Amino acid sequence: MTYEQIKKNIKDLAKSSFSKWAKICDQENRFPHENFELIKSENLQSILVPKEFGGAGLNFYEYQQCLVEIAKGCASTAAAFNMHNIVIGSLSTINLEALLPREKKRILPFLENIFQLVVTQKKIFAAATTEPGIGARFSLVKTNYQRTHNGYILNGKKSFVTMANYADYYLVLAKKLELAATSAQQPALSYFLVASKQKDIKINESWDVLGMRGTASHEVEFNNIYLQPEDLFMGQEGFALTKVMREPQWVTGGYLGVYLGIMEIAFEFTCDYIKARTDYQAGTGLGFQTLIQARVADMYLLLTNARNAVFDAAKKIDSVPGSDEANNAIYTAKYLVGEAAPELTSLAVRTCGGSTIHKQYDLERYHRDSMCGKLMPAVSDTCQIYLGKSMLGITEMKIW
Amino acid sequence: MTYEQIKKNIKDLAKSSFSKWAKICDQENRFPHENFELIKSENLQSILVPKEFGGAGLNFYEYQQCLVEIAKGCASTAAAFNMHNIVIGSLSTINLEALLPREKKRILPFLENIFQLVVTQKKIFAAATTEPGIGARFSLVKTNYQRTHNGYILNGKKSFVTMANYADYYLVLAKKLELAATSAQQPALSYFLVASKQKDIKINESWDVLGMRGTASHEVEFNNIYLQPEDLFMGQEGFALTKVMREPQWVTGGYLGVYLGIMEIAFEFTCDYIKARTDYQAGTGLGFQTLIQARVADMYLLLTNARNAVFDAAKKIDSVPGSDEANNAIYTAKYLVGEAAPELTSLAVRTCGGSTIHKQYDLERYHRDSMCGKLMPAVSDTCQIYLGKSMLGITEMKIW
Amino acid sequence: MTYEQIKKNIKDLAKSSFSKWAKICDQENRFPHENFELIKSENLQSILVPKEFGGAGLNFYEYQQCLVEIAKGCASTAAAFNMHNIVIGSLSTINLEALLPREKKRILPFLENIFQLVVTQKKIFAAATTEPGIGARFSLVKTNYQRTHNGYILNGKKSFVTMANYADYYLVLAKKLELAATSAQQPALSYFLVASKQKDIKINESWDVLGMRGTASHEVEFNNIYLQPEDLFMGQEGFALTKVMREPQWVTGGYLGVYLGIMEIAFEFTCDYIKARTDYQAGTGLGFQTLIQARVADMYLLLTNARNAVFDAAKKIDSVPGSDEANNAIYTAKYLVGEAAPELTSLAVRTCGGSTIHKQYDLERYHRDSMCGKLMPAVSDTCQIYLGKSMLGITEMKIW
Amino acid sequence: MTYEQIKKNIKDLAKSSFSKWAKICDQENRFPHENFELIKSENLQSILVPKEFGGAGLNFYEYQQCLVEIAKGCASTAAAFNMHNIVIGSLSTINLEALLPREKKRILPFLENIFQLVVTQKKIFAAATTEPGIGARFSLVKTNYQRTHNGYILNGKKSFVTMANYADYYLVLAKKLELAATSAQQPALSYFLVASKQKDIKINESWDVLGMRGTASHEVEFNNIYLQPEDLFMGQEGFALTKVMREPQWVTGGYLGVYLGIMEIAFEFTCDYIKARTDYQAGTGLGFQTLIQARVADMYLLLTNARNAVFDAAKKIDSVPGSDEANNAIYTAKYLVGEAAPELTSLAVRTCGGSTIHKQYDLERYHRDSMCGKLMPAVSDTCQIYLGKSMLGITEMKIW
Repeated sequence: MTYEQIKKNIKDLAKSSFSKWAKICDQENRFPHENFELIKSENLQSILVPKEFGGAGLNFYEYQQCLVEIAKGCASTAAAFNMHNIVIGSLSTINLEALLPREKKRILPFLENIFQLVVTQKKIFAAATTEPGIGARFSLVKTNYQRTHNGYILNGKKSFVTMANYADYYLVLAKKLELAATSAQQPALSYFLVASKQKDIKINESWDVLGMRGTASHEVEFNNIYLQPEDLFMGQEGFALTKVMREPQWVTGGYLGVYLGIMEIAFEFTCDYIKARTDYQAGTGLGFQTLIQARVADMYLLLTNARNAVFDAAKKIDSVPGSDEANNAIYTAKYLVGEAAPELTSLAVRTCGGSTIHKQYDLERYHRDSMCGKLMPAVSDTCQIYLGKSMLGITEMKIW
Repeated sequence: MTYEQIKKNIKDLAKSSFSKWAKICDQENRFPHENFELIKSENLQSILVPKEFGGAGLNFYEYQQCLVEIAKGCASTAAAFNMHNIVIGSLSTINLEALLPREKKRILPFLENIFQLVVTQKKIFAAATTEPGIGARFSLVKTNYQRTHNGYILNGKKSFVTMANYADYYLVLAKKLELAATSAQQPALSYFLVASKQKDIKINESWDVLGMRGTASHEVEFNNIYLQPEDLFMGQEGFALTKVMREPQWVTGGYLGVYLGIMEIAFEFTCDYIKARTDYQAGTGLGFQTLIQARVADMYLLLTNARNAVFDAAKKIDSVPGSDEANNAIYTAKYLVGEAAPELTSLAVRTCGGSTIHKQYDLERYHRDSMCGKLMPAVSDTCQIYLGKSMLGITEMKIW
Repeated sequence: MTYEQIKKNIKDLAKSSFSKWAKICDQENRFPHENFELIKSENLQSILVPKEFGGAGLNFYEYQQCLVEIAKGCASTAAAFNMHNIVIGSLSTINLEALLPREKKRILPFLENIFQLVVTQKKIFAAATTEPGIGARFSLVKTNYQRTHNGYILNGKKSFVTMANYADYYLVLAKKLELAATSAQQPALSYFLVASKQKDIKINESWDVLGMRGTASHEVEFNNIYLQPEDLFMGQEGFALTKVMREPQWVTGGYLGVYLGIMEIAFEFTCDYIKARTDYQAGTGLGFQTLIQARVADMYLLLTNARNAVFDAAKKIDSVPGSDEANNAIYTAKYLVGEAAPELTSLAVRTCGGSTIHKQYDLERYHRDSMCGKLMPAVSDTCQIYLGKSMLGITEMKIW
Repeated sequence: MTYEQIKKNIKDLAKSSFSKWAKICDQENRFPHENFELIKSENLQSILVPKEFGGAGLNFYEYQQCLVEIAKGCASTAAAFNMHNIVIGSLSTINLEALLPREKKRILPFLENIFQLVVTQKKIFAAATTEPGIGARFSLVKTNYQRTHNGYILNGKKSFVTMANYADYYLVLAKKLELAATSAQQPALSYFLVASKQKDIKINESWDVLGMRGTASHEVEFNNIYLQPEDLFMGQEGFALTKVMREPQWVTGGYLGVYLGIMEIAFEFTCDYIKARTDYQAGTGLGFQTLIQARVADMYLLLTNARNAVFDAAKKIDSVPGSDEANNAIYTAKYLVGEAAPELTSLAVRTCGGSTIHKQYDLERYHRDSMCGKLMPAVSDTCQIYLGKSMLGITEMKIW
């Protein structure tokens, strides 16, 4: 499938189905698995897998465009879909040609296995990175692993694991348990792929929140999970931190389209709503009121800034990934979208008026969903600090 | 009871009980009748009734202080309590000495009856003013009444009737149905007191909204309700509009304490939350982070502006009710509180971080409740227009 | 010369000369004619003239990039340069191939004459459009012309005529004086080219203002100025309004680069200033203060939004001129730049501290210059109204 | 004179004279000594001197009211007048009854001398505290003094010395020059009263700035100035820091009325200007435009918040000076006024339109003057940090 076909498919699904389940799952506080079955039926789970491995090979810009369209139907579905793609996308952009032969020998089988799971078996992946109380401060990770004679044992507890009760595999960040603390070094942080259907994995269905209620971002407990050598991410210990540090596009940039999508649909809602309303006193459409026009303009300006920033970042991720230019664009877009989304939906409620806080109107959910973007990593403070340091030429370690 | 005792009682109730039921009723989407039983057990339903009629005779400033304290426990309870007091308070401030003998003869029995119902029988009153689709534009009211040989027949449908399933009486705004449209005049708008427990009153339990979920502001339908002459508000037809027009303190000013209370408690929540948290990287309290301090300051500044404006308005309502000075202060306070409350809770969520969107934290509810203030009449646009005109000396009719 | 050479030349001039005269002319409240002599020495006055007529044929995007670079040296010079290019640019983009033969016959000589004046004789043009008391409301124009047997007589008074004492020609907007008001029609609005060195043109050197002091935007009085038929703009009466209405890119879009340039240089100033300062208490660079970093980030975000909007508009003006898409982008960029420029310089002053209000620092001038963008047409209110109507599908006449 | 008489006198002077010299001295970049001669002719220089010492004994609230009125005429005059009153006011509020007999014996003669100079000889005092490069960080003060056998020798350079070329006395902050650095202690910081007309005092007339141009806040150099024991402030070394630390009302709170006054007059200007203008298209007053009304309301809201905060602080300074409550109110008011003043004047320029950047309109100066408030100590960042810490219960040293 081409990008255009994929985007069209998504638009159709968003209108016909995603939006319906968005409302229902928000009310029932559950994962919209119906939407993910549709995603799989259209093979959308593999849009980031490179063409040579059987996927659609979309670039980041195209991916963000797709994410916007999903989010216009169901933001929780888009956020969950992005969690899957953070895992798949960061693997898809590995330049195999640039690897040393022994690296390639180690990494290629790992990639082939994962891509095959996604493309052929339509498996869904989830990241299990953050932990209760520590947020995204990776140096404080408590989940740990030990080597055994033929693999690893994993123990720990993860929070905010989106799709906790739906994903087929978790990508789990863990710290190596050093038996003797002889070394002054930071212990290795590694990722593992863990199949989700195991009796020693316990899900605490604690996700009952303001917005993005459909992401099912529960707590997950791993109790003495036995892992094979091939479950080690990229076949290498200590890979986690450097990987993440180099690629803010995925952990931070991935979300962008989700919250931009909420802004887009809330803006469309507002324009449609106003157009259909009458100003009874003036005997004209409500849209003829100057203050309404000015506020719609304010919303449009917020939206335009966010759009410009998101797609500027996406293009730079494709053209100069990892550069200062790309990273500045990512943090800019993350800050703008995170702060502007709730501001736009709040203006939308003010503009449309009191009736639109009723749950019968989707705007009520858009507002709650929009509040969550700024809380995702990198949070707004982190973005500001990053950009400030970057502009002032302060080169000390910038993230987390 | 003195004002100080009343305020202390309320503070105790807010901490011990109101806040508990606030959480439960938000989840169950129902009216916190438990809180109202406590209100009645402490005789708080009569705090605005003049002392000579058996009440506590609080002035507006004292009343707003009490409302803040209730709202810190349960904003929905405070909003409902205010609806009762809009009815009672506007009657309590009538200056009987200033009436002509024949006015006094008409009005006094009406007042005595109502105050007796509140003081002795602990009856609760609710306003039924707005209607579906027309908001607060009184000239468009469709609910109507006709005179019969010994009373009136009332028909119509009201929206946003807070305490629809709890109040003992509704104060219903209705337009006189002119049988022959001979007159070019606007038909009379009158208020009626309607006992709520009647089979021809139908409640449509439609209140399922973003915030202030406990107010039970359902739709109420009145089908051929027969009323006695003594049910006519103040014993006089056509009283409605002038009354309301002259007294923005009740319809607009009443709410002020509710949303200020939400700001107060959300600010307390934030300070307490931050004080209890550690910045693991720095090894200090989270509150030592400069950006946290600056944001707490931003919240404090919003709160201080709101406090100053609300209590300035309250004092002017007591000292120069109905004056331009008082009215400007009311619209100023309404705008500031309405806009600042969601801004403050939004900053609180950003400051406390992602965990606080969990429903286990009250802040999640504070944010949703805070969104509703600006949607109450006078809405923010109306306030701005009023103040702009007032400052520019434009004397054309200013409200609604 | 290629675009790259032109841009490099401008950058060099801005650093070496423009900035020096910017300071001097701001203090002396006079036109920086030194900068214009340099502009002419580099043939920059003809960068918009099509290549086939001897110019550099830059497109709008390239032009705005150049304008930014000039403004970084001297904003007044850039604004004046833009006034010249509003005249030249709107002529340069006429598609001669699309004209009817008789139109071409009329227009081509007019264009050839003007382009020759610019390219060969290095003449500078100025627009004389607005009038005292009416701003940019063209329907109220009082300057008038009458036909004579072999030409026209022009009378009137223009305000805000940038380069009033420097330009070689004025492009004057005037209303046809109908001797008998028989027609219900709006009288024709036409433009005329008027040579500036005439004894019956009086300049009132009234330009003594907050910022952009170097533009010399004085009042100019035209007393019985005799004009030839070839002085009529495009050889056609009544051409003015339609032309302008269809081309907001020039009257509104032209300014964009000027105010973006002020933002760019004020931001550079701030970063350089902070980098060179020490926080004596902490013993580190001032830039290590978190609040400084956050505020620099705020400035960077304002700047990024403005940059994105300006160059997005410029690209759309080149690719789809006159389209709704292009026009929305122009009004978006105008609003953002106009409002953001003083916001950014105000933050810069706060960030750099009290010393930078001293006139020895260029930031002091940047702030004053930046205040003026929002006051240029289309003013911020007009932009908001335009965008609001556009989004709400309100198709009534949108401008002025 | 009573407070009411004083306030009325000031109002009259502001209208009739202060405003005229404000314009002239802004243009000529010089101190408005004409205004100070009027101040002295009305004995206003002694309004803060206690009644028992011959002054008017105004309290802080009354003083701030007077300052507002002066600033409405000439903000530079008000700022300079406040510098004088910072010196006099901090002495006027000393509670002599609370002193130990030996303290009283030391302090009373000092006070009697100063008050006599102010009341009888109409002397004007200026503070010389800050220094080039160090701002208000007192620990870094370089100006120094040594004891001689019968007095002191003072050397150093001060910046931002308001009224440098007008005041009769400077109050100079200096650090004791320890000949042998034996002590780990911070050397004593002391204040001295220095007569201004001495040949070894050199004024560098460097004050050429954006706004508040009339304050003549030049650099002053003190070269081997010989001082008598009675010139030591309060007759005690080391008095400086503790004094200042305990009294933010003077160093920070003093300014409040100045910038509030600018806000008041800029708001009046705007309302008057709009009232006098016509919307030619609509054929009504410009004030009938909804966006104008909304923006005037925004300005009014900024003004009201500032008014409330300033007078709340003033009342608390009078009733509970030095308390946390009073100090929080001071920093709140300082932040609000400092940030809101330029925001209000910027809105005023946008609302009134481009003509009002002409120097013929006072609004042009109001805007420039208003930019300076946030740069005065405590600067906005300091205010935010202070309030944030205060709210979070962080008790480490809060200022400077």
